[in-house]
Amino acid sequence: MDLKNKATYNFKMIYITSGKPQVVIVGGGFGGLYAAKSLAGAPVNITLIDKRNFHLFQPLLYQVATGGLSPGDITSPLRAVFKRHKNIRVILGEVRDFKPDEKKVIYDNGELDYDSLILAAGIKTHYFGHDEWADRTLALKTVEDAIEIRRKILLAFELSEIEFDPQKQKELMTFVIVGGGPTGVELAGAIAELSQQTLKEDFRAVNPAFARVILIEAADRLLPGYPFKLSVKTREALDHLGVTVRTKTKVIDIDETVIKVKTDGSEESISSGTVLWAAGMKATSVSERIAARIGATLDPAGRIKVGPNLSLENHADIFIIGDLAHVDGPGDRPLAGVAPVAMQQGKYVAKVIKDRLKGKAPSKPFKYHDKGSLVVIGRNHAVAWFGRFQFSGFFAWLVWVFVHIGYLIEYDNKLIVLIQWAWNYFTRKKGARLITASGKKE
Amino acid sequence: MDLKNKATYNFKMIYITSGKPQVVIVGGGFGGLYAAKSLAGAPVNITLIDKRNFHLFQPLLYQVATGGLSPGDITSPLRAVFKRHKNIRVILGEVRDFKPDEKKVIYDNGELDYDSLILAAGIKTHYFGHDEWADRTLALKTVEDAIEIRRKILLAFELSEIEFDPQKQKELMTFVIVGGGPTGVELAGAIAELSQQTLKEDFRAVNPAFARVILIEAADRLLPGYPFKLSVKTREALDHLGVTVRTKTKVIDIDETVIKVKTDGSEESISSGTVLWAAGMKATSVSERIAARIGATLDPAGRIKVGPNLSLENHADIFIIGDLAHVDGPGDRPLAGVAPVAMQQGKYVAKVIKDRLKGKAPSKPFKYHDKGSLVVIGRNHAVAWFGRFQFSGFFAWLVWVFVHIGYLIEYDNKLIVLIQWAWNYFTRKKGARLITASGKKE
Repeated sequence: MDLKNKATYNFKMIYITSGKPQVVIVGGGFGGLYAAKSLAGAPVNITLIDKRNFHLFQPLLYQVATGGLSPGDITSPLRAVFKRHKNIRVILGEVRDFKPDEKKVIYDNGELDYDSLILAAGIKTHYFGHDEWADRTLALKTVEDAIEIRRKILLAFELSEIEFDPQKQKELMTFVIVGGGPTGVELAGAIAELSQQTLKEDFRAVNPAFARVILIEAADRLLPGYPFKLSVKTREALDHLGVTVRTKTKVIDIDETVIKVKTDGSEESISSGTVLWAAGMKATSVSERIAARIGATLDPAGRIKVGPNLSLENHADIFIIGDLAHVDGPGDRPLAGVAPVAMQQGKYVAKVIKDRLKGKAPSKPFKYHDKGSLVVIGRNHAVAWFGRFQFSGFFAWLVWVFVHIGYLIEYDNKLIVLIQWAWNYFTRKKGARLITASGKKE
Repeated sequence: MDLKNKATYNFKMIYITSGKPQVVIVGGGFGGLYAAKSLAGAPVNITLIDKRNFHLFQPLLYQVATGGLSPGDITSPLRAVFKRHKNIRVILGEVRDFKPDEKKVIYDNGELDYDSLILAAGIKTHYFGHDEWADRTLALKTVEDAIEIRRKILLAFELSEIEFDPQKQKELMTFVIVGGGPTGVELAGAIAELSQQTLKEDFRAVNPAFARVILIEAADRLLPGYPFKLSVKTREALDHLGVTVRTKTKVIDIDETVIKVKTDGSEESISSGTVLWAAGMKATSVSERIAARIGATLDPAGRIKVGPNLSLENHADIFIIGDLAHVDGPGDRPLAGVAPVAMQQGKYVAKVIKDRLKGKAPSKPFKYHDKGSLVVIGRNHAVAWFGRFQFSGFFAWLVWVFVHIGYLIEYDNKLIVLIQWAWNYFTRKKGARLITASGKKE
């Protein structure tokens, strides 16, 4: 194929027809990205297919939702990431079905042949059997979700400013977050800070500092998977920011303006115009499709159970990684759906594939090396959990900043984000406070 | 009103009920922003009403449309701009009607009383009697427009990559821009650069450098209002970037995949999936409403004719500024709808209002002081027109950068944008290349 010849637009799918083994990766999240990167130098042709043309740095999405960063700051075009790796091609498309016996993946624009298939298609929001709540709450998964949340929060303050009915005003200025895991904690902290600090002088008729931010968690403490000490520190930090934390509290019902909750048997109704859902995720329809095609086993959250080397029992050429995979972790609990797990799994399956090509003995089972967890609370506070080392406060926040920036710089030289952060830190400013059309289907 | 008392959410509209004269400003673009800013210290209460919660730095919108900047980089929340000016309040709302005899403005959430009214509501796209072309082309006026253009351009390359039909592929990779004024020239340059440089290594099956960018202009040269010498330089620079410039060419028809044009009597059909419209603007329905209510005179483009001090003849308390106003300029041509004109008009009407309050003699008629024009072509080239001083090339581009940055920094300390630009300049990178839902109604 002569790309230099301007006379022709004709081309052949060279990656399909070349003699090298074909690796198809579904999903350009943390798992898919690391798998592709680790295979970049190997004697294979890689096709990475994703619905979106960019990799999203999910851990900072709450910053977009609260006006601190722009979507462009936390996304990298997949093509830009792999432009120098000529054995990787990127396809924009949505996977529809699988033909494991013919080793084919069906997507909206055609078929892809594979010798090895890596499924890293991620998850969607889970409403614990209340799918109707999806219309009444906002979840934080995509860039569009974040823009919609930003729109909803900022609009609530705008409408308060011109609202004469005090009851309605209170409803507008009450923000409820369901779920006291890392995402819920980070959202609650950021919204409290937005209203207490960034917006405090912006209005004339209302005072954004009066806004109520309520964080609801069913367990008896925030960050249930974390050490007890850090849960206490987290609650203290949120108290300090003016967030109302309600543990041991379950959601019973949500309608357009009221969320009904139950604490220790007593029910309460909270009037709120904005309910954010950070209480759980569920596997996409990909898992059901896979299960139907090849008889894979799903766990209750819809994740696919995989063998010790992350492949399927009946199909050694299909690997499942990231949030879509059910992998047993310490204490018989499955590994959490977080970025470091997906990244390590991506690297691991790349190694399994390379070892097989070299005819090496089967690889050791996958083992997750926990390098630690960080949750940020507001502008300069975080909790850090590195095994026996647990700490909180400003130093934890600094660690959080450098870990995240390091990742962003690795892929896309997003040095600019570091500078913007520093700027926001000193000015308490959130520059990306736009109310724009979200594009989210109502 | 006690804003400190958390027990009450009650409030009164203090700005309406206070004894100071009320100034209502409709629109937070360049005209409205400068009018409000100039009145900030005066003994008046100001209400600025806008449909959007942010001021948009329109001259850089083409950078968002071509992936170089994020919307947050070129917008400033109106509330943030005026947070320290306690006599200015901002209202999010859309003006529906006027009652000039009662001195009231009707908006979607209520009424506003005014003693002086400044209308700076801007314009919308004008299709020269072919409103059906609005559905088939993309104009560049709002942030959503820019995101939609970005989506369309990037998607065209993505679809080319998986397209087997060479004819269809050529159609996808042909971008037509209608209108050879500053916006058309800047868009054409940026798209050419995107395809020739930024994307050149990103694809495997197609070469983005083959993309055709066609700029169509009805007059016999680009930038018709500019000195002839600069039109020639502009054309040279676009030729160098690989843009096909077609002057003396009129659009006859546009359908979904074909744009039909006529040059010197001979017709031609160009297959193109993406047609951008940069050929003219028209006043919003505000002008028709005003005209109907008070018998104002409209010019053919829908702009309102104003008196020498920018007020209406029958209503000295209503001022029209910015793109909505028809003000005679040099050579009996109306002043162009550009930012510097609007900014000077905003300052001017603020002075007229302040002079009236002081009981001073009527102000001198408005006179536009042309400080020069700049049009940028690609990454490091611009044309500059400062009266007798006309120049082009890298130095003109540097002037352009500093003029624009200076403005951005004045309002929002957007130093970050300067750094990002510098970064883009050295890396030829366009980081904000997201395909996201546009939110634009189809």
